Amino acid sequence: MATLHHAPFCPNSRFIRLALTEMGMEPVLVEERTWERRRDFLVVNPAGTTPVLVEQTGLAVPGAGVIAEYLDETRGLGLNGRRLLPDTTTARVEVRRLLDWFLVKFNGEVTEYLVTEKIDKRFMPSSEGGGPPDMNAIRAARTNVRYHLKYIGYLIGHRRWLAGDHLTYADLAAAAHLSCVDYLGDVPWDEDEMAKDWYARVKSRPSFRPLLADRAPGMPPAAHYADLDF
Amino acid sequence: MATLHHAPFCPNSRFIRLALTEMGMEPVLVEERTWERRRDFLVVNPAGTTPVLVEQTGLAVPGAGVIAEYLDETRGLGLNGRRLLPDTTTARVEVRRLLDWFLVKFNGEVTEYLVTEKIDKRFMPSSEGGGPPDMNAIRAARTNVRYHLKYIGYLIGHRRWLAGDHLTYADLAAAAHLSCVDYLGDVPWDEDEMAKDWYARVKSRPSFRPLLADRAPGMPPAAHYADLDF
Repeated sequence: MATLHHAPFCPNSRFIRLALTEMGMEPVLVEERTWERRRDFLVVNPAGTTPVLVEQTGLAVPGAGVIAEYLDETRGLGLNGRRLLPDTTTARVEVRRLLDWFLVKFNGEVTEYLVTEKIDKRFMPSSEGGGPPDMNAIRAARTNVRYHLKYIGYLIGHRRWLAGDHLTYADLAAAAHLSCVDYLGDVPWDEDEMAKDWYARVKSRPSFRPLLADRAPGMPPAAHYADLDF
Repeated sequence: MATLHHAPFCPNSRFIRLALTEMGMEPVLVEERTWERRRDFLVVNPAGTTPVLVEQTGLAVPGAGVIAEYLDETRGLGLNGRRLLPDTTTARVEVRRLLDWFLVKFNGEVTEYLVTEKIDKRFMPSSEGGGPPDMNAIRAARTNVRYHLKYIGYLIGHRRWLAGDHLTYADLAAAAHLSCVDYLGDVPWDEDEMAKDWYARVKSRPSFRPLLADRAPGMPPAAHYADLDF
């Protein structure tokens, strides 16, 4: 059985949890507090970041984008019509473009600010940057999320799923990031009905259930977080 | 013939220029000043970032990581022993891990600070963030680069090239980033002989020559920048 080193509110870990469940894999979950820089964890990923998938063979695959490529190469062809990185060149470019959009761009402009400031800094020692949230960072993230939501709405106005006719890694990555922001009550859903409808579709998938059950200690989710008809 | 939208000191563009030359491709180069948000450029890449490869067919492939995967899928098998993303699963994981390390982590901790503060801000209008450099950002980058240089030295102490026995995307991405930092005189080469020797090997490749000829207007490179025996 494979092991996934993750953090419950690390959006890139959430993306891989979704992808693994969609592929029928049930890894052992090991929670990492990356700021502790646990020695055995740094051996499997010198970058010290989550997620890291460790196969039963011992092969460590670090980073959400690397894991996504690895899973497609090792399990993708067995999924028939449910492959999350499609077969054709043009479709693969589009899925990877959007994957990079959410794993790197959305993360840097929205999720990382919010999760760090609102959740992680409550648990980090002050020597590692813990303490009260930086309201400027939170305000920047709340401004940025509106433009991303609009872009999702724009794409869904032209396509059934984010990258085309089928569910792909792009939908799972986008929904994973939005789920962290939504837990914190910072997605202005009323600003884009198209984006909201698409998120409701992804959120209703069985693979999403474990994410909706996650709780940050002492910090309940927004009231509609786990509601499928929000 | 393909077109590459790039910027001369965008490290991720430099990586793709190296990869294309190593593969025997000579694209038309179109320089982008991304802060101008040129309308036709945003059509090929809504993220507004370089590099973007546009094939003669019109297919636009945006982002260094996405282009690297695309080139391997469309041209990799024709390269025989010179494939830049190796064949085996384990080796592919290692190349992608290091690719992500340099394109995202090194970029965020070193190159982006230095290129933005020292080069781009001289050309940006003040409404887009132009102006004098932020010395705190420069100091942070100069501290961070030392740890990355040490990591390169550590890897090269165990392997001929960064990801193993052969030159791969990992070497080209790392060297592309270091070349931008080196132009600005901010690589402390005397701190790691192993890393310096490896860089001299990559820098001596014919594919590197065009990068060594690039100049930022009004800003000459560090004295040893184009010197192969630095």
